[in-house]
Amino acid sequence: MPKISQKGADMPESPIRKLVPYAENAKKNGVKVYHLNIGQPDIQTPQVALDAVKNNTIEVLSYARSEGSETYREKLAGYYKKNGVDVTSNQIIVTTGGSEALLFTLGSITDFGDEIIIPEPFYANYNGFSIANGINVVPIVSSIDQDFALPKIEDFEKLITPKTKAILICNPGNPTGYLYSKEEIQKLKALVLKHDIFLIADEVYREFVYDGIQHHSILSESGIDQNAIVIDSVSKRYSMCGARIGCIVSRNKEIIQTTLKYAQARLSSPTYALLASEAALDTPQSYFDEVIEEYVDRRNTLINELQKIPNLKVSKPKGAFYCIAELPVANADHFAQWMLEKFSHNNETVMVAPASGFYSTKGSGKNQIRIAYVLNKESLIRSVALLKLALEAYSN
Amino acid sequence: MPKISQKGADMPESPIRKLVPYAENAKKNGVKVYHLNIGQPDIQTPQVALDAVKNNTIEVLSYARSEGSETYREKLAGYYKKNGVDVTSNQIIVTTGGSEALLFTLGSITDFGDEIIIPEPFYANYNGFSIANGINVVPIVSSIDQDFALPKIEDFEKLITPKTKAILICNPGNPTGYLYSKEEIQKLKALVLKHDIFLIADEVYREFVYDGIQHHSILSESGIDQNAIVIDSVSKRYSMCGARIGCIVSRNKEIIQTTLKYAQARLSSPTYALLASEAALDTPQSYFDEVIEEYVDRRNTLINELQKIPNLKVSKPKGAFYCIAELPVANADHFAQWMLEKFSHNNETVMVAPASGFYSTKGSGKNQIRIAYVLNKESLIRSVALLKLALEAYSN
Repeated sequence: MPKISQKGADMPESPIRKLVPYAENAKKNGVKVYHLNIGQPDIQTPQVALDAVKNNTIEVLSYARSEGSETYREKLAGYYKKNGVDVTSNQIIVTTGGSEALLFTLGSITDFGDEIIIPEPFYANYNGFSIANGINVVPIVSSIDQDFALPKIEDFEKLITPKTKAILICNPGNPTGYLYSKEEIQKLKALVLKHDIFLIADEVYREFVYDGIQHHSILSESGIDQNAIVIDSVSKRYSMCGARIGCIVSRNKEIIQTTLKYAQARLSSPTYALLASEAALDTPQSYFDEVIEEYVDRRNTLINELQKIPNLKVSKPKGAFYCIAELPVANADHFAQWMLEKFSHNNETVMVAPASGFYSTKGSGKNQIRIAYVLNKESLIRSVALLKLALEAYSN
Repeated sequence: MPKISQKGADMPESPIRKLVPYAENAKKNGVKVYHLNIGQPDIQTPQVALDAVKNNTIEVLSYARSEGSETYREKLAGYYKKNGVDVTSNQIIVTTGGSEALLFTLGSITDFGDEIIIPEPFYANYNGFSIANGINVVPIVSSIDQDFALPKIEDFEKLITPKTKAILICNPGNPTGYLYSKEEIQKLKALVLKHDIFLIADEVYREFVYDGIQHHSILSESGIDQNAIVIDSVSKRYSMCGARIGCIVSRNKEIIQTTLKYAQARLSSPTYALLASEAALDTPQSYFDEVIEEYVDRRNTLINELQKIPNLKVSKPKGAFYCIAELPVANADHFAQWMLEKFSHNNETVMVAPASGFYSTKGSGKNQIRIAYVLNKESLIRSVALLKLALEAYSN
């Protein structure tokens, strides 16, 4: 019998999905499960995007242009300009989700055995995309006690080797909710310029920033045109996770030319989703204002409620819709599974993502969980109450 | 300035798209271009698929299940059963196009530096997916003089090394139009069993077989459950190239589990396209009957017309909608570009795909082109007339 490869064996299981069978089982047993485990917002997709698909007049569902149509990329460039990032349509490659944007980027700048440095905890699938490309993730620890702020630059420098091709950040961060300041971005800029490496910023949560703070894109910095690559996606911005449309933005011509070759190899992004994504750019500002107001309210509710739990540590997120909580348990993987398998209160329980899957350093984050505040306030209050009850029961 | 990687540099430009700027230029100069260069059918997408999207009631465009919904995979299993392939829903992973299906498959069975053997000429993007996975394509020549039949098994055996992980075939073939017989499939079966390697069959053109011959899937063979992996797609079957939905089908559990991890890393296939693809399974048989009748007619027309051109060699395709023609020119790349740049007749010209991009052996196929018969009969007749005139003018 022919065998799978080492790479195939090394591909990680999704930490968010590992517990899914237990959740399904709980549901079969009549238990209601509150899902704080996955970044699937309950927010309605903008009507203008939904309508573009419902009213489509396609008769032959043809390939789209590999890099995205000129008109869509023009409109995207307009969106970035409005957000303080001056780019042109030919500095954009449209991709099938942010996932593909990162996959193409890594494929364009790394060879087998190369390294990328990522502050951890980080979005778990960065591991998968790295393994798929045959490269190694070099984690640099950010701490819950510093709210997951940027690690010290000298700590980054200690990790840089001739194999280091890039530093990858997620800003605002999944799973931390941390928003890098202008000063932190400028420190990273100096670092990548000094070492002549790339700076990749996953900015898919750009719109989700709170407390009046501004998001600072790496592309709004001057002097790193050749180093800066932004990963973007419509998934969170417009609550269009199922569209699978994203893009790569860079002023580095070689990056655009090389990622284009990857885009051509897979021919096209999904045509219906492109219709929706292009139309979504006409979403009125009021939509975002309401969404942000809702998320601020959810975040405040969640953090307030969590802080009432004894011996639980949580940092207040400034962006995205996640937070990391440190629990008074030794093994959050076990606890999360236990909540689905053994715990319920009035036939309800809660599903969270154990944070260990967001760390690449073995043994890190064992007592942490990621909570996505993608449910309404009432559900969040009940979820945290369930978490509190579960922690009490678990410790007995 | 940071550099792209060797892998990025090695990614091939799409041979089908290399000439696009010349075609665009011709159009700007008022020349009508007949497109025989790309496998984008002009056939209408089944109404039932179009309607499923137009009548959708989605309000939150959420992620789909990474491996495809249970109901879609159940229906797909039903489709395969109807086509003589007995598989269950848990032997199917739904992917974002056939492209992703092959990418995940190669990622699951190969490590850096491994080899796959492919009869050439082959679908050009197999090169790109191989480079993206850090593996080497080992070509085995099939000849136009044998209508691109399966090369001799002893020639395959000469190429097998400890690094050989799979043989990849496309059946019926793009770009050859060749349909492997049951006997040829059985020879390959014996070969992969003997050497304990995988047999990957890209069967996306399964429906497009002519002259009453039956398509013989590798999965309808018994005894190679652990070796056989089928790559499939809705793109050609339902003229839904822009959907970007495909799948991996295998009875090998490890393959399914491993490709699932890749599917989870990219979260989801496009949700709207999944709606269309599931609905497309209800396309009435009459649709296919008409489409096949149309393609047979087109093929016969094309081959008849081509055979009238002196010193042109062409093999009659038994499937798919391509053929390879050998031209009385030294360099078909140059000739194809010349037809777009320098030639026109009554303000019309024709675009073909130089076949060199479908060969991995340097220098092979230099005098060949691939013709996709995806246009109506009238356009095909005019296209071949233009080709004939161009050849005459070119030789002077």
